[in-house]
Amino acid sequence: MNRTFPTLDDIRQAAGRIEPYAHRTPVMTCAGLNTMAGSELYFKCENFQKAGAFKFRGACNAVFSLSREEAARGVATHSSGNHAQAVALAARLRDIPAYVVMPSDSPAVKRAAVEEYGADITFCEPTLADRERTLDRVVAETGAVFIHPYNDERVIAGQGTAALEFLEDQANCDVLIAPVGGGGLLSGTLLTVKTRFPEIKVFGAEPAGADDAYRSLRAGRIIPAEHPSTIADGLRTSLGDLTFPIIQSYVDDILTVSESAIIAAMRAIWERMKIIVEPSAAVSLGVLLEHQRFQGLRIGVILSGGNADLDHLPWHT
Amino acid sequence: MNRTFPTLDDIRQAAGRIEPYAHRTPVMTCAGLNTMAGSELYFKCENFQKAGAFKFRGACNAVFSLSREEAARGVATHSSGNHAQAVALAARLRDIPAYVVMPSDSPAVKRAAVEEYGADITFCEPTLADRERTLDRVVAETGAVFIHPYNDERVIAGQGTAALEFLEDQANCDVLIAPVGGGGLLSGTLLTVKTRFPEIKVFGAEPAGADDAYRSLRAGRIIPAEHPSTIADGLRTSLGDLTFPIIQSYVDDILTVSESAIIAAMRAIWERMKIIVEPSAAVSLGVLLEHQRFQGLRIGVILSGGNADLDHLPWHT
Repeated sequence: MNRTFPTLDDIRQAAGRIEPYAHRTPVMTCAGLNTMAGSELYFKCENFQKAGAFKFRGACNAVFSLSREEAARGVATHSSGNHAQAVALAARLRDIPAYVVMPSDSPAVKRAAVEEYGADITFCEPTLADRERTLDRVVAETGAVFIHPYNDERVIAGQGTAALEFLEDQANCDVLIAPVGGGGLLSGTLLTVKTRFPEIKVFGAEPAGADDAYRSLRAGRIIPAEHPSTIADGLRTSLGDLTFPIIQSYVDDILTVSESAIIAAMRAIWERMKIIVEPSAAVSLGVLLEHQRFQGLRIGVILSGGNADLDHLPWHT
Repeated sequence: MNRTFPTLDDIRQAAGRIEPYAHRTPVMTCAGLNTMAGSELYFKCENFQKAGAFKFRGACNAVFSLSREEAARGVATHSSGNHAQAVALAARLRDIPAYVVMPSDSPAVKRAAVEEYGADITFCEPTLADRERTLDRVVAETGAVFIHPYNDERVIAGQGTAALEFLEDQANCDVLIAPVGGGGLLSGTLLTVKTRFPEIKVFGAEPAGADDAYRSLRAGRIIPAEHPSTIADGLRTSLGDLTFPIIQSYVDDILTVSESAIIAAMRAIWERMKIIVEPSAAVSLGVLLEHQRFQGLRIGVILSGGNADLDHLPWHT
């Protein structure tokens, strides 16, 4: 394995580091969805993770990796989504300040969640340029350590712990599938699976309306998501220069899925499994149901998060 | 214990009988809801039960209790809700006919679920009188065995297995709370808990808009629900002459709750626990949040079912 990638050892250390704080989430099955997919599905339920998504694993590993001196200055990030909540909660657990830069048009419910965890919020214009500028200013003023949502080795190692737990519970599977946005979860999953059970195939699932990973893999270089258009708001980001080479080295393929299949898969999970997942978490099942590949195989599916907006369900149009 | 009530032995036999078919549902906890309630809550997740509700326990026990000769004639019931699905699935598992009488105005989604399990549906006028008349006719024509939704010892014993499992997982609790409609779940719960751990207090939770159990307990006789008005559609029924005496003998009290508290509790469970429960299943938590009783205690909460209508959420008005 490439020496610059996080190792299985890094991921095992991350697992030990976050163990006092993170949930060991269950693996669930559902006879009805098995019938629909024509496969045996094993769902790793990160929607039940602290702060509602796998993001807490990476944020927690990063926050608790800091030296005492670094930690004392606090941590900072820019995000309007699950990573912001995850960093805020991890910082609260270590009892250090968290500075979160959020676009001024972030939904009230997302602000409230970050505030509930006690983070200090700075609002910025809803552009990537102003986000980064504002973050730089916050970091300069506070000395806080920036925790990138995915392009960070500590974050990637943390995300890899979901697959580590999954393999402990259900090593007997043929395929593992995880959604890909910035690539933190997928690259952590790849590093875990391909060093332990290289015969298990690992696929990334991506909305066709935000298929930058699909195109990047084929082009052999990072092609940024320019105008992503998908309900899966966690998957609109582009790959980073740490996550792309890991994905390029190890992924079996990236599979894309239509918006209607994402919505149908999300509803099927709610109806059949009686659990709440957000749209990004339904993308993997969407791929399985739309492509009808992998018939008869045992498939691990990482359900990435459960922070759905209960006031705006996608099947209410 | 009164000789005519099902015994703990009946409930243990039911547990063995349904074990090959029913899910052993998990007990879940949620730090956020503990804070809201000021108590330690342990949720028995019958929303994850087969056919989406605890009802499968009673129906399955009843269907598999039948002699071969009885079973060959099939089973019948009248219900538009979870009991109909439960009987249909149990009958399919025993490979016998199921005859379900449903009001002609039943929602399409409920019909579809019963049809999916292969039951034979007969529609009737949406009145109790026509339901019973139609059921009598179906039973006369087919010779099928009637399985009442709650006023049936085999059904009560089956429902008692949820508390039996709960106590195996979490005997260390002070209070157990279950919703009460016809009283099958509550009376099964009482028989289990009060014979094994009589020091645990057991409460029934009931919508104030359908408080027939509350009034019956105080009157000392069954007072039927005349014009029940509640979103908790599983709890609009009246007690039966088998369930009422059990409840009267053993329940610590019936606690009622407002509609707004039921809806708030349902939403809190969806948002915080990331699981789907139907309105009837949220009534117990509604009681705890509205009354703010039982502060500092360990409380078991039976989440009765998860068959919510995803097209009509109560907070969308």
